[in-house]
Amino acid sequence: MSSVDTQLEELKGEVKSELPADISVTDVTYEGPELVIYTRDPKRFARNGDLVRDLAGTLRKRITVRPDPRALSTPERARERIREVVPEEAGVTDLEFHNDTGEVVIQAERPGMVIGSHGTTLREVTRETGWTPEVVRTPPIESATVSNVRNFLRQEREDRREILERVGRQIHREPLGSEEWVRITTLGSCREVGRASFILSTGETRVLVDCGDRPGSGDRPYLDIPEALGAGANSIDAVVLTHAHLDHSALVPLLYEYGYDGPVYTTEPTRDLMGLLTLDYLDVAESEGRSPPYDSEMVREAIKHTITLEYGDVTDIAPDVKLTLHNAGHVLGSSIAHFHIGDGLYNVAFSGDIHYGDTRLFDGAVNDFPRVETLVLESTYGGRNDYQTDREDAERKLLDTITETAERGGSVVVPTAAAGQAQELMLVFEEAMREGDLPEMPIHLDGMIWEATAIHTTYPEFLRDRLRTRIFDEGDNPFLADVFNRIDGGEDEREDIADGDPAIVLSTSEMVSRGPIQSWLRHFSDDSDSSLLFVGYQAPGTLGHRIQNGHREVALTRGGGGRSETTLAMHVETVDGFSGHADRQGLENFVKTMNPRPEKILCVHGEERAVQDLSSGLYHDHHLRTFAPKNLETFRFR
Amino acid sequence: MSSVDTQLEELKGEVKSELPADISVTDVTYEGPELVIYTRDPKRFARNGDLVRDLAGTLRKRITVRPDPRALSTPERARERIREVVPEEAGVTDLEFHNDTGEVVIQAERPGMVIGSHGTTLREVTRETGWTPEVVRTPPIESATVSNVRNFLRQEREDRREILERVGRQIHREPLGSEEWVRITTLGSCREVGRASFILSTGETRVLVDCGDRPGSGDRPYLDIPEALGAGANSIDAVVLTHAHLDHSALVPLLYEYGYDGPVYTTEPTRDLMGLLTLDYLDVAESEGRSPPYDSEMVREAIKHTITLEYGDVTDIAPDVKLTLHNAGHVLGSSIAHFHIGDGLYNVAFSGDIHYGDTRLFDGAVNDFPRVETLVLESTYGGRNDYQTDREDAERKLLDTITETAERGGSVVVPTAAAGQAQELMLVFEEAMREGDLPEMPIHLDGMIWEATAIHTTYPEFLRDRLRTRIFDEGDNPFLADVFNRIDGGEDEREDIADGDPAIVLSTSEMVSRGPIQSWLRHFSDDSDSSLLFVGYQAPGTLGHRIQNGHREVALTRGGGGRSETTLAMHVETVDGFSGHADRQGLENFVKTMNPRPEKILCVHGEERAVQDLSSGLYHDHHLRTFAPKNLETFRFR
Ligand SMILES: [Zn+2]
Ligand SMILES: [Zn+2]
Ligand SMILES: [Zn+2]
Ligand SMILES: [Zn+2]
Ligand SMILES: [Zn+2]
Repeated sequence: MSSVDTQLEELKGEVKSELPADISVTDVTYEGPELVIYTRDPKRFARNGDLVRDLAGTLRKRITVRPDPRALSTPERARERIREVVPEEAGVTDLEFHNDTGEVVIQAERPGMVIGSHGTTLREVTRETGWTPEVVRTPPIESATVSNVRNFLRQEREDRREILERVGRQIHREPLGSEEWVRITTLGSCREVGRASFILSTGETRVLVDCGDRPGSGDRPYLDIPEALGAGANSIDAVVLTHAHLDHSALVPLLYEYGYDGPVYTTEPTRDLMGLLTLDYLDVAESEGRSPPYDSEMVREAIKHTITLEYGDVTDIAPDVKLTLHNAGHVLGSSIAHFHIGDGLYNVAFSGDIHYGDTRLFDGAVNDFPRVETLVLESTYGGRNDYQTDREDAERKLLDTITETAERGGSVVVPTAAAGQAQELMLVFEEAMREGDLPEMPIHLDGMIWEATAIHTTYPEFLRDRLRTRIFDEGDNPFLADVFNRIDGGEDEREDIADGDPAIVLSTSEMVSRGPIQSWLRHFSDDSDSSLLFVGYQAPGTLGHRIQNGHREVALTRGGGGRSETTLAMHVETVDGFSGHADRQGLENFVKTMNPRPEKILCVHGEERAVQDLSSGLYHDHHLRTFAPKNLETFRFR
Repeated sequence: MSSVDTQLEELKGEVKSELPADISVTDVTYEGPELVIYTRDPKRFARNGDLVRDLAGTLRKRITVRPDPRALSTPERARERIREVVPEEAGVTDLEFHNDTGEVVIQAERPGMVIGSHGTTLREVTRETGWTPEVVRTPPIESATVSNVRNFLRQEREDRREILERVGRQIHREPLGSEEWVRITTLGSCREVGRASFILSTGETRVLVDCGDRPGSGDRPYLDIPEALGAGANSIDAVVLTHAHLDHSALVPLLYEYGYDGPVYTTEPTRDLMGLLTLDYLDVAESEGRSPPYDSEMVREAIKHTITLEYGDVTDIAPDVKLTLHNAGHVLGSSIAHFHIGDGLYNVAFSGDIHYGDTRLFDGAVNDFPRVETLVLESTYGGRNDYQTDREDAERKLLDTITETAERGGSVVVPTAAAGQAQELMLVFEEAMREGDLPEMPIHLDGMIWEATAIHTTYPEFLRDRLRTRIFDEGDNPFLADVFNRIDGGEDEREDIADGDPAIVLSTSEMVSRGPIQSWLRHFSDDSDSSLLFVGYQAPGTLGHRIQNGHREVALTRGGGGRSETTLAMHVETVDGFSGHADRQGLENFVKTMNPRPEKILCVHGEERAVQDLSSGLYHDHHLRTFAPKNLETFRFR
């Protein structure tokens, strides 16, 4: 009998002795980080919400209770009872029964009403039917990504249970009892922006944090060196993904190509956005005649192996490592990954990308951890002069520019990233029009923006508290406003819009290098009343950068392939202040108000000058031990 | 055809075109770092010493010329001719003909006379016989170690040629052309003394520098981590051994147990001392009931795979790495390992253990390198107060103590390491007696001291210039003085000496933990006229440390096993200043006078306080970027 089996045998005994004698415990297993208790008395658990909470506290484990199949009513009967118990207004759109686990997935427009206050309604479902309910939101805007992911996971349910069981046994394996140490190895994003990737290692465990590419360069993280995957892709225990941007996520599927078959821990929206963005990454590679490093099958593998966490969940991911994700304020689902290592031995937080102040979309990054000795901090705007226009001024300038353009009869074309910035702008425009600060005009969404917006509306829990309340409690979802139009009529629709009345166009890609934005420029090129408005960073080498720097002769990709030279007659404007990254002040504030203060800070994810500036600034002003690591280094902390 | 074969084919062409047209070149191969040229005209090469030198310069390779077998005279005929060519006084003791390579190994008491001025005599041998002579010294004192190693290598000649050919092809492989970087990973000896071990890695190559244990603790270097041997023992290209002390060499044979089958680069005396010391290491482990990590077969494997270098030889050990060993002044054959990486990309020197000033035995450490950007520096006596008594005062105090003891009719017992310190003391005593500064009395050598001395006399090239001249040119070998007596009569002899007239006893082990020194203490214990004299560091936890700190009740191992409690009536004295390590001043001088100065210094091989002190001292006083690494870290330099 393996040591995990022995452990489970003992746990079963403990569970039995903690529970009232008349509650049956038929089996106890691990599924991923959770301990699953099978019982013939699921209704007893449902009646008393404290039973599971107390058990979780005593055993210091996340616990799921599953009914023994014999305790279940038939799906037909259960369906009826659920319809009775759950209020009509919850808007249940689908019920899906899984006999193997006794779970019923309830898809509803208003999940909160299925859950009920403190879970009362959910527990009533179990009491009445024996089934364990799991609630997911019906996307208020239909999202192909979300429904593809959900369908795929449904179809792979059996595989997934096997994966979870294997991962669960791995997490709860008997520790080797080897020497205690804590190290970080830098595989990318040091003294550069892009290809974020780190190994966090202990004597027991190796975790890969992020695995991105360097947009435009094709440079990958140093995965081949011995201390990364040199001893095989399965020499890592877990992957943790801070957020879905490609500079953090693009090569996660590659790990499965390499034979990795362990878990990816991240938030649910990050999983879905990763799916969307990596599939697009493959499409782009193919359309540009580069051979992608993996195929879409590997994206599916990554999704199948993803274990989603909510912000604040403390989760065992190895015998000696607990992971907690915290809101990073940067993009939907973005997280700071906090690792508690050993029994109080050490704590490390990886900031991922952060925005410290609140924005319309997101609460600002969390910087309150029980303990953290080392912080790995992004430094995109860490340079001593990297101050962004403040949000209010930026919004005013944005609205002024659009108003002026509209007054002369022109439209405004805004190249933007699909996720985050686009939705931020949508909120600004929607409010301004509603409050009369901007003339009413249609806002056209092109490229993946609509799809990304749909994903945002699927996960309002991850949006800013004010916005969440508005959507949840007031039933007032600004993304559903009539003013937004999804471009689905192709070039004809674009041409009509370009020839029509003033409008706002939000379109990918954000640096004008590719995507429908190029069509928009073609249609608008000779319209000297209209404006091209940059709101984001334009990297050197991109078409956006050229235009921003005064060039007006631009080579655009034609619809049917090939390129055409065009002269741009549009006004070209730039408004900064809409970055998803904290600026220098934001980074300093993030660190300054941390409580407790970390002992050491590794400044990463910034150009050489930015990381050096930030590192020496934090050292001099806040007396912290700071480092500006190079790629391919290993730091030991304990 | 592999790229190495293509390369050899091209080299053959180049060699032919560089040589006069009438000199035949029948084959060209690699053997280890050397390019071997086979010719039917070995005599032509022998007539013109410039041919090989010019070729080596043009091809930038080390070159060996071998006769095609058809060009050889018979061994019988050659033997006659060699006797005629080599002067009688060279003292040839053995000739050994190897038909496979056309080499004749000439063992002689005075190798210099076999070589002749600038190699003239050697070349005459070839001219007369066709054979390529290789000269080795007949040990003036018979050394079991040296003759075992030589016999073993003779017997393994075929295996060894295969190894050399494989290594040669590996060294000259086509480079991957991967990214250029230079890194050092610390596997041991950081903030501690013992288990010296580092990985020097580039995009092409991984070199292990030293692989020692931590005496007394059983702690080994972190060989199992992914960046060490985690991807397999053959993921390293080469091992470089700075010197034979067990804290640098003990686990080199373990690498072969792990399946490594690449080369060990070191000096010839280090190879032999490593053999002696690691075999003793195994004996000690066994006698103490510990199971050794490898058996003696692995020591032989290590010796078989050793490629010896002379100080100053610049040797290709990988497509992008050239190694040069320089005298370190620390122990016989000890080296500073200098690595030239890429084509001028970077230079790193590992100090190993160093003594900066000249001693009686050795010239002081070399600190003059063409280039060196990073120095990895030992810090044993790096602490701010770690100043040693100067050598002259130390010698005076030593002689005074012995004289006083002798005057009251007592003997002096000195626990000492077998290699280095013992020979240093022998030279002091021999001179003092010869010059009347010390009463004449026998000097008894026990434990491995005699054997270590024999190895020293086999390699006078590695001794101090003055001493070398004395031995070479004046035929005056102080180690052969009559005053030295090797203990070979066991306990009876020891007892007689203890009961007899004043004498000096040098015996291992240096910290009194084991070995014959324990017998000497038993025999002398109640002799209150005699002295126990410490000349070396006594580590905490050793019997020597206890005694030095005033304890006189000592537990000694009995001849037949078991332990006896004894009370020590002897005087106990300590004289410092005979360490093989530079003291704080010596370390500073070493760095200060380096030319050019390194940019970065990693302070290692010292207790935490010592490395921190030295690191901050060198930073403040000499404005160098210094580090006090921890074990398990990786530093990137380029
Ligand atoms: Zn990001
Ligand atoms: Zn990023
Ligand atoms: Zn970013
Ligand atoms: Zn040493
Ligand atoms: Zn040492």
